[in-house]
Amino acid sequence: MNFNKELKSIKNYLAGKPIELVVREYGIEPKDVIKLASNENPYGSSPKVVEAVRKICDKMYLYPDDSMYELKDGLSKRFEVGEENLIIGAGSDQILEFIVRAKANDKNGVLMAKTTFAMYEIYAKGVGTNIYKTKSDTHNLEEFLDIYKNSGNISIIFLCLPNNPLGECLSKKDVYEFIEQIDSNTLVVIDGAYQEFSSYKDEKTKIEPKDLIDKFPNAIYLGTFSKAYGLGGMRVGYGISNSEIIQNLMKMRPPFNITTLSLKAAIEALKDSEFVTNGIKKNFEEMKRYEEFADSLSIKYIQSYTNFITFLLKNDKNSSEISNSLLKKGIIIRDLNSYGLNAVRITIGKERDNSRFFEEFEKIYNAG
Amino acid sequence: MNFNKELKSIKNYLAGKPIELVVREYGIEPKDVIKLASNENPYGSSPKVVEAVRKICDKMYLYPDDSMYELKDGLSKRFEVGEENLIIGAGSDQILEFIVRAKANDKNGVLMAKTTFAMYEIYAKGVGTNIYKTKSDTHNLEEFLDIYKNSGNISIIFLCLPNNPLGECLSKKDVYEFIEQIDSNTLVVIDGAYQEFSSYKDEKTKIEPKDLIDKFPNAIYLGTFSKAYGLGGMRVGYGISNSEIIQNLMKMRPPFNITTLSLKAAIEALKDSEFVTNGIKKNFEEMKRYEEFADSLSIKYIQSYTNFITFLLKNDKNSSEISNSLLKKGIIIRDLNSYGLNAVRITIGKERDNSRFFEEFEKIYNAG
Repeated sequence: MNFNKELKSIKNYLAGKPIELVVREYGIEPKDVIKLASNENPYGSSPKVVEAVRKICDKMYLYPDDSMYELKDGLSKRFEVGEENLIIGAGSDQILEFIVRAKANDKNGVLMAKTTFAMYEIYAKGVGTNIYKTKSDTHNLEEFLDIYKNSGNISIIFLCLPNNPLGECLSKKDVYEFIEQIDSNTLVVIDGAYQEFSSYKDEKTKIEPKDLIDKFPNAIYLGTFSKAYGLGGMRVGYGISNSEIIQNLMKMRPPFNITTLSLKAAIEALKDSEFVTNGIKKNFEEMKRYEEFADSLSIKYIQSYTNFITFLLKNDKNSSEISNSLLKKGIIIRDLNSYGLNAVRITIGKERDNSRFFEEFEKIYNAG
Repeated sequence: MNFNKELKSIKNYLAGKPIELVVREYGIEPKDVIKLASNENPYGSSPKVVEAVRKICDKMYLYPDDSMYELKDGLSKRFEVGEENLIIGAGSDQILEFIVRAKANDKNGVLMAKTTFAMYEIYAKGVGTNIYKTKSDTHNLEEFLDIYKNSGNISIIFLCLPNNPLGECLSKKDVYEFIEQIDSNTLVVIDGAYQEFSSYKDEKTKIEPKDLIDKFPNAIYLGTFSKAYGLGGMRVGYGISNSEIIQNLMKMRPPFNITTLSLKAAIEALKDSEFVTNGIKKNFEEMKRYEEFADSLSIKYIQSYTNFITFLLKNDKNSSEISNSLLKKGIIIRDLNSYGLNAVRITIGKERDNSRFFEEFEKIYNAG
């Protein structure tokens, strides 16, 4: 059977390995598996959210309110934007997909950092658009601007702030100066999946959606409930932009793209900011331990503004071998080999899990 | 800002009104709202499923097992097909979207009945493909074949069996004879969202996925957990086809397209077939009351093989007025005006709710 030509070049996203798989493949008890692979919130979800969702489990037969009135109301108050400035997606991933399908095509192109969130490229390939990447792995705005000006046909620029899977973050000032040089017909995506972390660590990286869209009619801010809010499994993200862009993206949104329980979870999660802040605080306390650990082994790492840290390994160490050895011990981390890097990305976990990681990693690292 | 040209023609799906909206707009207590609009299971979800999901609400922070190993295992056993024959979507809706994006383009076209599930057309418009429809509202295979042969460029044929929103169903025999005449490069979609209902009512309408895909390498069967399984709010559907087609559709699947709780719900729902069968049995008992009610008012209706019934109204009655009057009484039904029909679709509810519907509908109908 023939399929559209775009399919030929699509490779699927390689997800972090789930606990179930390690249990199945290595016969390790679920309680002994430590997952530091997918940047989930190690402190779980807010107990208030868990309680609220539990209460409505008997409503699973009902479709969600497709207007998402209550969630939009909550986001609208939180970010001081109108409801017409909001779109909800099954994770901010889905909004990325809407964006690509709404703007990109085989006659234009999209621009991103060399090593950044893999879905930008996967979605771009899905529509057969041209893909431009910087030479530098981390975000380098001079390179972005160079490529932008020379190519002349960029429909979308992706800025991942802070950047997954590397962890670095640009300052708001630099980002704003960059966007000022971009044509109003090019959409600039500020992927803020980890913004709660970076803005806690360094106020200068903080991008306020309202301020952003007031200044730049061609910018869209993306946020998610998957990381700081502890709802990775529930698939809720949001986009904030001017109403014209939102209206067009809404055309790509399939009905009921959020489950009934996810909607409730997100609504309640917005209300418990204490849970979010506490988690972020603990994250950076534990991050220090990772930095000290890496220093003690003379491993290079990138200063991280997120809930993960990326270790850049020397040539005599192999990221895949190390990841696999850890997996057999029940510790799941993310091998960045699929990004073309001899590096591993580790989600900052809870104190005890991090200690076990240090112990096992050190043994494997020194033996390897 | 410019957007891709396909967006111009897209109109969004008009979802059934949620209970929350009626509560907000008409100040009716949630307990007094009767929703007979979205073909949800009026008997809720299986209590075993509710219990199982409740137990894992504290796992909402974890991404789901993206291989969906356990759910595929369950479906594979249920339908006696291999796991390579299965794809899971956020509702069967999402698989429809994968199909359209994988096969349709501006150089070919898709074929469907005049009045059928609205998402076929919405997704088709999203890729700017040509849309062919039969003249008859219900499925007429002669007309399908005529258009198919004359157009010469059909990439996908949608058969909704039984058909939403009208309720009629073709026999398996007729469907098979039809597919035999279709070229192997045209994908025939058997949308079986309501097959559990039709195959209970009349064995002759039953299409077994395994038998279908063994006979026809260009067919795909779609099923859902939203209707008979009582999980409309959880967005889980599945596609069954030969492995080549599945592999290609998998390229369109974004990671984590099912929530952690949805995955659990579907896995458990598959195990409780008694709940499903009981609901279907009660559905057709209550359906009889709807038929008698319609007869008593001399309202024409389509013999329904589903969990809803469609009343075709005379010219002196107006489907939108009647639906709105019912809405003010807290009863939500589906006006088919958006399908170009002076008709209403009513989900078969629980005994008590149906009685209240009959009472209120009769008053409004006779007054109107």
